Amino acid sequence: MSQPIDFYFDFSSPYGYLASEKIDELAARFGRKVRWHPILLGVVFRQTGGAPLTSIPLKGEYSLHDFARSARFLDIPYEHPKHFPLSTQHAARAYYWLHDQDWQAARSFAHAVFRSLYTEGRDVSDSEVVLEIAARQSVDRAVLAEALAGQALKDRLKTECEAAIARGVFGSPYIVVDGEPFFGSDRLPQIERWLASGGF
Amino acid sequence: MSQPIDFYFDFSSPYGYLASEKIDELAARFGRKVRWHPILLGVVFRQTGGAPLTSIPLKGEYSLHDFARSARFLDIPYEHPKHFPLSTQHAARAYYWLHDQDWQAARSFAHAVFRSLYTEGRDVSDSEVVLEIAARQSVDRAVLAEALAGQALKDRLKTECEAAIARGVFGSPYIVVDGEPFFGSDRLPQIERWLASGGF
Repeated sequence: MSQPIDFYFDFSSPYGYLASEKIDELAARFGRKVRWHPILLGVVFRQTGGAPLTSIPLKGEYSLHDFARSARFLDIPYEHPKHFPLSTQHAARAYYWLHDQDWQAARSFAHAVFRSLYTEGRDVSDSEVVLEIAARQSVDRAVLAEALAGQALKDRLKTECEAAIARGVFGSPYIVVDGEPFFGSDRLPQIERWLASGGF
Repeated sequence: MSQPIDFYFDFSSPYGYLASEKIDELAARFGRKVRWHPILLGVVFRQTGGAPLTSIPLKGEYSLHDFARSARFLDIPYEHPKHFPLSTQHAARAYYWLHDQDWQAARSFAHAVFRSLYTEGRDVSDSEVVLEIAARQSVDRAVLAEALAGQALKDRLKTECEAAIARGVFGSPYIVVDGEPFFGSDRLPQIERWLASGGF
């Protein structure tokens, strides 16, 4: 029985979005499932000294250009959002809350968050927007709103971020296949060969 | 008449080495030539606040793993050198000196520097090693040794680095095709499509 693939990402990561549009289909071709793990890059960067790509001199400008071009290369719709970078803790917490009840609804929710941000320019840092997106998954808005305000879900996301860092996650997307780590949506071709060959 | 492709790299950059083994052949398939521009990432990083990949927490360990795996993926020999990161000003200066006399000898020299470092573990930061590699291109060792010690060649490399930064170069490899910039050896597939389609 082959292990699921682990997919770590921040909802605010354009390359995370690109990977999110490809990883399930790629895994399925090799009979694999994918476990999605939204995390907060801000928490990771406090450990690694990293910074949002777009804040880095020269590299920042290039990145804005490369996000859109890489999306075209992969045939994925992309429009760089006005609200960027943005905080994604509400979306990530809502994801884990939903996941504990229905993993498929959580997967649909995650796609909807990414697409709302990167194709409609919605400000998904706003908890009201997150609640609205979750409501499409037949979620009781008031129940989720209460959960989002509670300590348990905050602790849950903190634990998930710490577990990711302990595993070596330093950016988004970070994908682990049978213990082998791959960083970046540009590693999808390597992941494909790894899955096909069991390593190379 | 199509423009040459500009290929910026530091001899100490593993991903620069990987690109160096592919870029000429890729360009030639589309009737293009490549201008090689060795630069010093240390000079670039003083402007951008960048740092050598291997010095970054978590990302450093991953990078060591990814250099070797990406080389296998591209079917290029690779052994991570003991001397790393290392300074490459002698090699870069020797490149420009040679290039002013014979661009093909300079190209062969550049390949020999990269391969000496990444397949034989030679310490190419040592000017004696650079002179020995250059001597294979029928260079008069004493004449090159004198040029390497002179101010003119130091100024030349400084000017090349400044021109690269002015063009937006923030890392290695950085490849410009008809004004379109591509960063990283993992952008070779995008470059290929760009050359085939004149953009996408």
